[in-house]
Amino acid sequence: MDERKEKDRIEDIIEAIVATYDGDSGTNFIDVTNLPVREKIMMLLEDLLELLFPGYTGKRVVRKENIRYIVGDILCKLRSDLTEQICLALRHECRLKNCVTCDCATMAADITEKLIARLPQIRELLKTDVQAAFNGDPAAKSLEEIVISYPYIAAITIHRIAHELHLMEVPLIPRIMSESAHAKTGIDIHPGAKIGRHFFIDHGTGVVVGETAVIGDNVKFYQGVSLVAISIPRDAQRIRGVKRHPTIEDDVTIYAEATILGNVTVGRGAVIGANAWVRQDVPPGVTVTMAMPEVQVKHHRDKHGAHKEHKKDE
Amino acid sequence: MDERKEKDRIEDIIEAIVATYDGDSGTNFIDVTNLPVREKIMMLLEDLLELLFPGYTGKRVVRKENIRYIVGDILCKLRSDLTEQICLALRHECRLKNCVTCDCATMAADITEKLIARLPQIRELLKTDVQAAFNGDPAAKSLEEIVISYPYIAAITIHRIAHELHLMEVPLIPRIMSESAHAKTGIDIHPGAKIGRHFFIDHGTGVVVGETAVIGDNVKFYQGVSLVAISIPRDAQRIRGVKRHPTIEDDVTIYAEATILGNVTVGRGAVIGANAWVRQDVPPGVTVTMAMPEVQVKHHRDKHGAHKEHKKDE
Amino acid sequence: MDERKEKDRIEDIIEAIVATYDGDSGTNFIDVTNLPVREKIMMLLEDLLELLFPGYTGKRVVRKENIRYIVGDILCKLRSDLTEQICLALRHECRLKNCVTCDCATMAADITEKLIARLPQIRELLKTDVQAAFNGDPAAKSLEEIVISYPYIAAITIHRIAHELHLMEVPLIPRIMSESAHAKTGIDIHPGAKIGRHFFIDHGTGVVVGETAVIGDNVKFYQGVSLVAISIPRDAQRIRGVKRHPTIEDDVTIYAEATILGNVTVGRGAVIGANAWVRQDVPPGVTVTMAMPEVQVKHHRDKHGAHKEHKKDE
Repeated sequence: MDERKEKDRIEDIIEAIVATYDGDSGTNFIDVTNLPVREKIMMLLEDLLELLFPGYTGKRVVRKENIRYIVGDILCKLRSDLTEQICLALRHECRLKNCVTCDCATMAADITEKLIARLPQIRELLKTDVQAAFNGDPAAKSLEEIVISYPYIAAITIHRIAHELHLMEVPLIPRIMSESAHAKTGIDIHPGAKIGRHFFIDHGTGVVVGETAVIGDNVKFYQGVSLVAISIPRDAQRIRGVKRHPTIEDDVTIYAEATILGNVTVGRGAVIGANAWVRQDVPPGVTVTMAMPEVQVKHHRDKHGAHKEHKKDE
Repeated sequence: MDERKEKDRIEDIIEAIVATYDGDSGTNFIDVTNLPVREKIMMLLEDLLELLFPGYTGKRVVRKENIRYIVGDILCKLRSDLTEQICLALRHECRLKNCVTCDCATMAADITEKLIARLPQIRELLKTDVQAAFNGDPAAKSLEEIVISYPYIAAITIHRIAHELHLMEVPLIPRIMSESAHAKTGIDIHPGAKIGRHFFIDHGTGVVVGETAVIGDNVKFYQGVSLVAISIPRDAQRIRGVKRHPTIEDDVTIYAEATILGNVTVGRGAVIGANAWVRQDVPPGVTVTMAMPEVQVKHHRDKHGAHKEHKKDE
Repeated sequence: MDERKEKDRIEDIIEAIVATYDGDSGTNFIDVTNLPVREKIMMLLEDLLELLFPGYTGKRVVRKENIRYIVGDILCKLRSDLTEQICLALRHECRLKNCVTCDCATMAADITEKLIARLPQIRELLKTDVQAAFNGDPAAKSLEEIVISYPYIAAITIHRIAHELHLMEVPLIPRIMSESAHAKTGIDIHPGAKIGRHFFIDHGTGVVVGETAVIGDNVKFYQGVSLVAISIPRDAQRIRGVKRHPTIEDDVTIYAEATILGNVTVGRGAVIGANAWVRQDVPPGVTVTMAMPEVQVKHHRDKHGAHKEHKKDE
């Protein structure tokens, strides 16, 4: 192709693409020095994981003698990186609201201090979750096995951090954190959800816990459990923050693929069977199961073993 | 162990492994300079993501002043890398067909030019998807939040690119792209599926959209929705390309875990409830729901709160 | 903030965090030079993948002339790295049991030799799995496409390796491997599960196969299929190892989201329909389907197309 024609062609395409960057700022945010950076937040999560479960990532050799120095080192790094990202998030929100009075840098530093001060308590909570995982899974042989191999531990750790930041009304970052946990583990817990002690999700893939869900102590879920809302889609923005997800009281077990809908309460010690639908309050101590579905059984093999009929495929 | 014996032992094992490389070329492709490279395709997707959502990955600092140069830089890199990978894919297919006449290099360059020329329109489509996500999710506060944190956006972006290459009959690469999106997000959309504007999948994990599915504008899915086919497994290869997946018209909402089977049409504005099965055409404007399953409720706690019975576990 | 006060504050937080490291060793394992390292195990899996599917990762250019040397190179690296990790796992278990007599280093070397000697047979098994994938998926055009793009192939490869190590009673590592496959692919197969030849999982997300499951030859699953156990949760630890998951005989097909519970047998050539529940033995050659759920159809559009009612949302 003629070189000059080629150059013009590239120029035209560049122009065409750049033209699409005007207009809607939401998908165009050119000046992105004011947005938190996803990769940096994921590195922060790695650092927090190192603090909460020292030595497990294998990145550092941790001993009783050096643990204090490693903790100090990670903490200093965390304070500056996390403050920077929170500041970007706060500034972004101020820009959306045309606010010029906030001192985002100081607010960010303050939030970071508060989060770090909460780390011992977050750690204590996570210990109870690991214990719950051990008690609840016949296949587990030791606590170490759970910490270093279960995707669930990554998901609950990230949730408990994101939840703290959500409570402190940090924009953007809690959602970035929870969606990264979702992408890694298939477990989708909104940062707004409140979760008690000794929480365990066995298998995990497909679990969805909505923004205003409340979960008590000693609760166990299996894969595909959903705590979701009934809402009117076309007014989605109007109901943000309104309590519309279930409340699960202490000692409840919810089996695979069960769905709990709306602002209902599942009472203490109840058991919800697999695939069950729950749309009303469940009293304490009851078991709710799906009626055994009627199954049809057809004998379909002729003597050569050929198939006569089949059901759905992909 | 005697060192010579050790050496012989290693030699034996190497021989045994190499012997398994003969025979079936499909799992043996030793001369792999003719196969596309998955890691390179994933880097291409990163570049395309940077072009389609500038600045969001945080890898570059993007401003109004430098955007033109960044776009030009990425475009040049893309053109040579993508052409190289497409050429490998075309050559692979020619080899399967014993074809020696194709000019794969020229065809590959041509396909790359066509894809790049489509980028402005792909971007416009993606803007509508981001808007749909914002409108459809009560938990979202801004468009930026959606772009930088939702796994769905990565999935739909990769799909829209893979679909273009599928339409241009590029072998291998569209599937590599869609399966990488599947691995990252739990959303499994075949590159052949046609998807209209303003498409949104909330939560996403477990969504399956088959090769010949057609989806209109303004459609919303929840997690676990499947658009699948009814086929006869033992003749799987014979039905490739035949329309066997559903058609979903405009303004349809399909709730969690619903399954639509076969080449049926869900009419405009219909609503399909959670867990529903649809195996026939659905007229426009109707709501289809599962009958409330019968639930059995047992009170099972004695006064000490002990469990008397349980249902399934893992 | 006053610099000295700042310093004290950091010291206090460090103390508070370090204080939580005392007590339960399970979440505290400070001296982690005795735990396997997850990242190293994932690199070992990459090497094994390179041996089992040479050239597919694209990391090396593999030809008939150099394949022998590449295999030799990877094997040597594998032997030392895998032996090291297995030794860490064995020592960890000895520590739990207060055992001081085991020669963990020699045992580890021995296990590594056995695994490597099994690689040709593992490869032959994997070839059958790739062939099953090709036969079972109408959308597949070639064996290469399957190997380089299907998440399923990564999952079954990792399983077949983890299963060998499980049979040799290696602690920790099999579970780390299977949970990494789970995180990457959404497919959750316990290393203890026995799987025959020609096994294929189409789509894959949400599949759960429990520790004591047994699967025959020529079996095909779709997404969300679960082979799970009925157990009494509060005694979870007591039932480890007891056969409590299903047995699936040869030539069985199980469609999407079906659940098979408990130590039941699904007989040869049976077909289990989507969403079905199976809690009893299924005789050979039968088809088991869910009764068509009753669906309610409401016409809900007024002449302006407004929605009158909706079902559940997120």
